[in-house]
Amino acid sequence: MKFNPVIEHLKVYEPGKPIELVVREFGIDPKDIVKLASNENPHGCSRKAADAVRNAAHLMYRYPDDTMTALKTGLCDRFGIGSENLIVGAGSDQIIEFACHAKLYGGAKILQSEITFAMYQIYAAQCGAGVIKAPGIAHDLDAMYQLYKEHEPEIIFICAPNNPTGDCLNRVDIENFIERIDHDTLVIVDGAYQEYAAFKNPDKALDPARLIEKFPHVLYLGTFSKAYGLGGMRVGYGIGSVEIVRSLYKLRPPFNVTTLSLIAAEAALEDQAFVETSLADCFEQMARYREFATAHGIETIESYTNFITYLLDGVSDSTHIADALLRQGIIVRDLKGYGLNAIRITIGKADENSRFFDAMQKLIINSGNR
Amino acid sequence: MKFNPVIEHLKVYEPGKPIELVVREFGIDPKDIVKLASNENPHGCSRKAADAVRNAAHLMYRYPDDTMTALKTGLCDRFGIGSENLIVGAGSDQIIEFACHAKLYGGAKILQSEITFAMYQIYAAQCGAGVIKAPGIAHDLDAMYQLYKEHEPEIIFICAPNNPTGDCLNRVDIENFIERIDHDTLVIVDGAYQEYAAFKNPDKALDPARLIEKFPHVLYLGTFSKAYGLGGMRVGYGIGSVEIVRSLYKLRPPFNVTTLSLIAAEAALEDQAFVETSLADCFEQMARYREFATAHGIETIESYTNFITYLLDGVSDSTHIADALLRQGIIVRDLKGYGLNAIRITIGKADENSRFFDAMQKLIINSGNR
Repeated sequence: MKFNPVIEHLKVYEPGKPIELVVREFGIDPKDIVKLASNENPHGCSRKAADAVRNAAHLMYRYPDDTMTALKTGLCDRFGIGSENLIVGAGSDQIIEFACHAKLYGGAKILQSEITFAMYQIYAAQCGAGVIKAPGIAHDLDAMYQLYKEHEPEIIFICAPNNPTGDCLNRVDIENFIERIDHDTLVIVDGAYQEYAAFKNPDKALDPARLIEKFPHVLYLGTFSKAYGLGGMRVGYGIGSVEIVRSLYKLRPPFNVTTLSLIAAEAALEDQAFVETSLADCFEQMARYREFATAHGIETIESYTNFITYLLDGVSDSTHIADALLRQGIIVRDLKGYGLNAIRITIGKADENSRFFDAMQKLIINSGNR
Repeated sequence: MKFNPVIEHLKVYEPGKPIELVVREFGIDPKDIVKLASNENPHGCSRKAADAVRNAAHLMYRYPDDTMTALKTGLCDRFGIGSENLIVGAGSDQIIEFACHAKLYGGAKILQSEITFAMYQIYAAQCGAGVIKAPGIAHDLDAMYQLYKEHEPEIIFICAPNNPTGDCLNRVDIENFIERIDHDTLVIVDGAYQEYAAFKNPDKALDPARLIEKFPHVLYLGTFSKAYGLGGMRVGYGIGSVEIVRSLYKLRPPFNVTTLSLIAAEAALEDQAFVETSLADCFEQMARYREFATAHGIETIESYTNFITYLLDGVSDSTHIADALLRQGIIVRDLKGYGLNAIRITIGKADENSRFFDAMQKLIINSGNR
């Protein structure tokens, strides 16, 4: 059977290994597994969200309220935007998918930093688009601007903070960059980890209302998967001009967010105390990761997220380390596939992090580099 | 901003009005609303599924097991297929979406019956494909075959039983039709309501394992949204040859089914007693709808689903009736948009159906046609 020729060359996203897989492959008891691979909130989700879902479990037979009025009202209040500026997706991933299908056709191109969220180029490839990458481990906005002028891409992706490295551009630099981009180029600003960045350093905080007021060509992305602790429920959103949102809406399948996902996100949004506690604890624990790295001669990248990247050049091989940790039930992300000899570790709870440090210390000593 | 030109003409699916909307628009107490518009299972979902979700509510922070091993194993056992023949989607809708993106490019066409599930042509239009329709209220396989020879579509859709009319082709006729279609044309057999059809009449029952063994160009669709009572959780599946499934998989976004949706579907699949009770009650209640129709001179279509279509020519206007019912808090689906002066009513619980009959009787008498 003949298929769309773009399919043949598509790469599939490699997610963090689920606990179920490690149980099956290595016969490790699920309670002994420490998953620090998918940037999930180690505190779980808001109890209010879990309670709301328990109380609504009998409503799973009902199709979702496809107007999403309750959740949209909550998000509009939080960000000071109109509902016509908002679209909710099955994770912010789905908003990226809509945007690619909306803008990429007939030999289109996207522009992104070399090492950034993998889904940008996966969705672009599904649309048959070319991918232009600005080299470097961090977003190099000057290089991106030069490539923009040269290639005239239809979409530019800025990931702030950046996944999988954890670093973050300053708001003023992002705004100055967008200022120079023509209004027919869609600039997607992915703020999946913005709650962490804003907590750590106000210079990194983005205000979606301000962004879309200043720039008609910006689409801001946010998610409930990280700070709100709802990664499993697939709720994200896009904020942009009426024109952009209206176009993306045409590509939204009905009922794209489940009944219980809507209920969970509504409750999670109201429990800001849970988010604040999660953020504070994340950076408290992250200090331990920096201390450990310094003590063992591991270079790190300043992180504005709930994960930290250990650069292992001169220390060990990232694939070796990630595999050895996995055999002990500790799941981290090897970044070799991104072209980095590095591992990305989600900041876990205190005891989870201690287990990582113990195992990692032994591995480094055994590998004989120290 | 310029967008993909196909977007401009896209129509958006009009879902059944959610209860929340009727509460807001008409100020009716939610407990007084009877929703018979979206073919939801009036018995809700399996208690085992609801309990499983309550017990797992605290796991919403975990990304789903993207291998979906547990659910896939259950489905493979149920249907006697290999996991390489199975793809799970956010509703069977998403499998339709994958199939359209996989097959429809560069001036492609789909072929469908005139009055059938609206999403086929919506996804086709997103891919810029043309839509060929075989005329008639039921699937006319001879006409479809002629149109197939004439237009050489990339995809043919067969909805069995058909939504929104409720009628169903016989298995033997479907198989004889597919037999005559060349192997590069994808034949999608949508079995969203198959549990109902198989319960009512074995001649209508389709066996996906047999279908894909006989036909390498068939993709069978099933769902947890109807008989399994999980419409809000968005879980459906496609069954086809390894070649088809592998291609669709490349278009599947990671984590396309939520953590709690997987858990709910796994539990629901094991509770066949709930499904059997739902099916038996559905057809017991449907007999009342047929009696009511006969008594009031309303023509119906023999239904193999959990809904019934009242053809209102000579009785009243479907939009008038649907609106009048809505004002009383009874939500049914007006089929005017499908070109029919008809309403589609989901078979509800006994008391819900009684409320419909009372209200409908008064409306017919008031409209002076009897």
